[in-house]
Amino acid sequence: MHAQRAWPVNLADHETLARAHLTPEADAYFNGGAADEITMAANRQAWAAIPLWPRVLRLRAAPCLKTPLLGRTWPSPVLVAPMAQQGWLHPDAERATALAASALGAGMVLSMQANTPLEHIAQDVAQEPGRGPLWFQLYHLGNRGHTLALAQRAAEAGYEALVLTVDAPIHGVRDRERRHPGHPPRALAQPHMPTPASGAEGLDALLRQAATWEDVVWLQSRSPLPLLLKGILHPADARTACELGVAGVIVSNHGGRVLDTAPSTATALPLVADAVAGRAAVLVDGGLRRGTDILKALALGAHGVLVGRPVLHGLAHAGAQGAAHVLRLLQDELMAAMALCGLADIAAIDRACLQPQ
Amino acid sequence: MHAQRAWPVNLADHETLARAHLTPEADAYFNGGAADEITMAANRQAWAAIPLWPRVLRLRAAPCLKTPLLGRTWPSPVLVAPMAQQGWLHPDAERATALAASALGAGMVLSMQANTPLEHIAQDVAQEPGRGPLWFQLYHLGNRGHTLALAQRAAEAGYEALVLTVDAPIHGVRDRERRHPGHPPRALAQPHMPTPASGAEGLDALLRQAATWEDVVWLQSRSPLPLLLKGILHPADARTACELGVAGVIVSNHGGRVLDTAPSTATALPLVADAVAGRAAVLVDGGLRRGTDILKALALGAHGVLVGRPVLHGLAHAGAQGAAHVLRLLQDELMAAMALCGLADIAAIDRACLQPQ
Amino acid sequence: MHAQRAWPVNLADHETLARAHLTPEADAYFNGGAADEITMAANRQAWAAIPLWPRVLRLRAAPCLKTPLLGRTWPSPVLVAPMAQQGWLHPDAERATALAASALGAGMVLSMQANTPLEHIAQDVAQEPGRGPLWFQLYHLGNRGHTLALAQRAAEAGYEALVLTVDAPIHGVRDRERRHPGHPPRALAQPHMPTPASGAEGLDALLRQAATWEDVVWLQSRSPLPLLLKGILHPADARTACELGVAGVIVSNHGGRVLDTAPSTATALPLVADAVAGRAAVLVDGGLRRGTDILKALALGAHGVLVGRPVLHGLAHAGAQGAAHVLRLLQDELMAAMALCGLADIAAIDRACLQPQ
Amino acid sequence: MHAQRAWPVNLADHETLARAHLTPEADAYFNGGAADEITMAANRQAWAAIPLWPRVLRLRAAPCLKTPLLGRTWPSPVLVAPMAQQGWLHPDAERATALAASALGAGMVLSMQANTPLEHIAQDVAQEPGRGPLWFQLYHLGNRGHTLALAQRAAEAGYEALVLTVDAPIHGVRDRERRHPGHPPRALAQPHMPTPASGAEGLDALLRQAATWEDVVWLQSRSPLPLLLKGILHPADARTACELGVAGVIVSNHGGRVLDTAPSTATALPLVADAVAGRAAVLVDGGLRRGTDILKALALGAHGVLVGRPVLHGLAHAGAQGAAHVLRLLQDELMAAMALCGLADIAAIDRACLQPQ
Repeated sequence: MHAQRAWPVNLADHETLARAHLTPEADAYFNGGAADEITMAANRQAWAAIPLWPRVLRLRAAPCLKTPLLGRTWPSPVLVAPMAQQGWLHPDAERATALAASALGAGMVLSMQANTPLEHIAQDVAQEPGRGPLWFQLYHLGNRGHTLALAQRAAEAGYEALVLTVDAPIHGVRDRERRHPGHPPRALAQPHMPTPASGAEGLDALLRQAATWEDVVWLQSRSPLPLLLKGILHPADARTACELGVAGVIVSNHGGRVLDTAPSTATALPLVADAVAGRAAVLVDGGLRRGTDILKALALGAHGVLVGRPVLHGLAHAGAQGAAHVLRLLQDELMAAMALCGLADIAAIDRACLQPQ
Repeated sequence: MHAQRAWPVNLADHETLARAHLTPEADAYFNGGAADEITMAANRQAWAAIPLWPRVLRLRAAPCLKTPLLGRTWPSPVLVAPMAQQGWLHPDAERATALAASALGAGMVLSMQANTPLEHIAQDVAQEPGRGPLWFQLYHLGNRGHTLALAQRAAEAGYEALVLTVDAPIHGVRDRERRHPGHPPRALAQPHMPTPASGAEGLDALLRQAATWEDVVWLQSRSPLPLLLKGILHPADARTACELGVAGVIVSNHGGRVLDTAPSTATALPLVADAVAGRAAVLVDGGLRRGTDILKALALGAHGVLVGRPVLHGLAHAGAQGAAHVLRLLQDELMAAMALCGLADIAAIDRACLQPQ
Repeated sequence: MHAQRAWPVNLADHETLARAHLTPEADAYFNGGAADEITMAANRQAWAAIPLWPRVLRLRAAPCLKTPLLGRTWPSPVLVAPMAQQGWLHPDAERATALAASALGAGMVLSMQANTPLEHIAQDVAQEPGRGPLWFQLYHLGNRGHTLALAQRAAEAGYEALVLTVDAPIHGVRDRERRHPGHPPRALAQPHMPTPASGAEGLDALLRQAATWEDVVWLQSRSPLPLLLKGILHPADARTACELGVAGVIVSNHGGRVLDTAPSTATALPLVADAVAGRAAVLVDGGLRRGTDILKALALGAHGVLVGRPVLHGLAHAGAQGAAHVLRLLQDELMAAMALCGLADIAAIDRACLQPQ
Repeated sequence: MHAQRAWPVNLADHETLARAHLTPEADAYFNGGAADEITMAANRQAWAAIPLWPRVLRLRAAPCLKTPLLGRTWPSPVLVAPMAQQGWLHPDAERATALAASALGAGMVLSMQANTPLEHIAQDVAQEPGRGPLWFQLYHLGNRGHTLALAQRAAEAGYEALVLTVDAPIHGVRDRERRHPGHPPRALAQPHMPTPASGAEGLDALLRQAATWEDVVWLQSRSPLPLLLKGILHPADARTACELGVAGVIVSNHGGRVLDTAPSTATALPLVADAVAGRAAVLVDGGLRRGTDILKALALGAHGVLVGRPVLHGLAHAGAQGAAHVLRLLQDELMAAMALCGLADIAAIDRACLQPQ
């Protein structure tokens, strides 16, 4: 209706700006979801559909976003989700994303499929005061030696936790990618992938090398770092994870990219939080596009939230500055939402924000 | 589908006509809401979604709209909501709005951010027979002296109540305004604002000067006029207000302009009315666009309703006549709806209109 | 998507064809509803949203549509609703409609605002074998003498029941009509209206002359014909009607033309049927556009159904033949739906069609 | 948004490609539904709306699709639904469809209205290793001699079951077909239809020759093959079928082609499965367009699923290869969905996939 200024005022604007910078192949890869993208859309809609009940006349100062997570206190409950092949979007790749996260006090979860060596990212940000958590994400690809070596590299470089992705043993049925098949440019480094590249193709081969609960037990026993499992939706899986002593679970459906019609993250989060019952950290990843969404996630039991595609949108059109602006918008909106709900700090947030009594 | 005549037949027509008179900046300021405008849209939809159950063969004459409020009886349950900077829309500004309200027997709540001195408005309408309530709205901006001085000015001028807005300690995340940033013309007078202008900027500064429950206690004890709190959604806040002895609460989400995904006014009203339980007047403000909406609000426990943007739409394209026509449409529709529900007067309205048994 | 043949295959096609024959004023008058037309749309959607559960392997012949109503048995449960000013649509006016109804075994409810004298209609069809019920609709306009005289004219002419419309003491807020104000051509006869024409204008005057329960008691005691009340939605009004001994109630919201956001007819029908509890005939009028809708209405407790606008659509573009085709489509669809639900006759229809157990 | 490649990536693409090959008459015949096509649309939407809850870290290999049905084990739970007049779509007609099914391990249900003699299909595929079930569908057209002769022909040719369609004693109200009336080319053989062609026309004649429960009892007692009833939605009919000892029931609303607003197949399936309670095989037909839909059907109690229109879409634009690709997509998607839900084989599927606890 109205002419739109160039500078983005919300995350949807960043997405629009990013699209103009992407090839159809990259757009399909980063923005596509599984099948009819029902879950991808539901992730967003489910957060928006939850009401927030404001409270009045309670605050005397700006809310404090300080967030305890895995034994330390961080400036913010927000982390950048692990996302592959950021070099396909911007030459600064994961360095830009990590810099943005660090500058905003947000955490950074580096993807095993990053194009930047994990050591470089750690050098850039591990010593930064005011940064958020620095975690490393990996898949178990059937090679325990490689998994353990990566875990040790990450620990030595200064990462503080391992995030094992468990919800994508196979690629998922991604119609958009099939329409626009493509791969990241071959020139991009893949500094954490097995050599030679895992040749697994086909459902059976992929599943034969995928992680199982036994692998989790094994990794728990050997890992030099606390272990979180990413991609838990079913409360029974959350219970099993807690029984095995993991440090945390991340509620996620892989951004709606793997199994279409899986429940939205907002649907699964309270069930997982109830199942965990305080035995581990609970985080959530998927569909968060507003500070109000983050407040709702925390109210439903999350100790922190991961933000994925929006950070890439900022990266794609404006590098580190764009990624930082996305995080800035979210944190400003979160603080405003907390202020309007009369919440002085993260500890004050609970399900009472979402319904009277 | 059909050609549309120039003369508006409903409030939506007034909105369409008004839009043609507004700059993009004024349109964003007056018509925009917070973030994705989910709450702004929900305000309207929630009223429309409530069914009204007609009753037949009961009336022998037109229904009577006479409405008791704060100890007096008024010709109508409708008041014009407090809205800032009406001089940006029409040179007659608040004088036109107040004249329209008075002519229709509706109440007028003058905004602290009006461009017309409160005394002028009172001179125009306080002595009019058949007018509605005349109230003054203010924010507490951290300066008790200024607040009390304003309250005394209002009392001396003939205002009958103070409306303290409590739901907007900060500006809210208004994407439309950010796309079309603008300010009211500098030539417009701001006759009730502190001098020098409150320099507070930033979330923390704004919150440090915003009202708290302690300020309400203080103002209750000093105010020369009955005090209503505007912007209550949570029943717990309504209970606190009642315990402090306020004269009334106004259920409002600030027209969906402050916290997006806050509940619609129709959702919050019955909870607040139940919490107040007769201890104070209950009014509601937000999303009312039809006489049927007003009847539903009264059925859900409101003693009066505030109408905001539609009055400005009338003002913007046709001055006092336009604003009066908006109020006329609403009151005519309300009377028709009461007639068709077999309700002879305001006292006959209760929740039985909304569901059999 | 596909080119559409000229001959209508369903009632929506008749509506499309009719629109091409109407002036904007006539279109607004006949097809418009109250305010935002929420109830008008809900009438249709509510029938469509009710599921029908088919039964198999039960029938050995076509279902029988014979329908008992007010002590006689008729060929069909369908009646043409009373609708005013049919001469504005087609020169054959109510004669065409009545002929179509008679030919299809449907009933005819002649409107007091017909342009054809009630005696002419009776002469045309009262002796037709295989016709449906012949009823006369009237408003009580504050003049008992006129009401009684009309009732006696109708009885003498051969009408079998009176239908007193009780849901429209005032005109309703009809935005479409206000945009396209118009009146039926002055040349059209108004053979049943008081002379001089009732001059009542304005809400109060209209309500002072409108019927009340006392008028119903009076008319019950004097009427030479059984009396039905048309426009009952609230079960409490249905109970009152039964206590006064009326012959029947017609669930209707006047086609969504009077009070917008009144409940859909499908919502009100089962409540009214339960309240009546067999003490009177129950009919329903509003939103029926398919034979499946009629089956659902009968399953929810209606003994007969009234069809309004669709018959006028047929009339408008093709006279008696068009009106007959509309009734034919509905009855054919009703018979097919009964066959597919394993229902041999009208008596076999109950709420079990709408949900297992 | 993006240019679309020619090669289909999902069943919707096959539908789009097929449409370009069809005359309006054939499109209406094969793709149309009853009336407003509410049930046809609901069939699809209902499957999509059911959530699937993934489980993680459980599988060590690809899931196994082996499916027990009527006493044998087959490679897949998928069968091609019986569909008439495939020669209207492609010269290879049912031979192409049967070949595709056989190649993919899917079952084939040959329609009595096929254009290819049942013996030819049996010759083509009955001896194929790795094929699925081979069943023959028929209507009982009032001629027991013809029905029994067909059943014997099917048994002798190697078919393994009879599928008696019970939900379409009449044609249904098919608006699309009425707009584009047409018949299959007369040159197409009708090798299983009575000679002379059943002259039944009109509702009554069709119902007089349609099957009843007595015919089912008779056919059960004489049939050389196990008998399934296709077109059961109501659990009471399922119970009757089980009491008569049928081998199976197929939940179906005839693709939404017969009674509009009948419940979706996903709505009816769990009620039928509960009513059958293990006494017979339960299959479901209607609206399945994704492997996730099939998994949900199996979770709701189906032992197998029938896929109809999508196979014809593949056939229409690419013959046997197209039909095979449709089946391949479904089975690949089913296997992926099972893998992501941690289901090693068909026996592991139950309602727990659809909701935690």
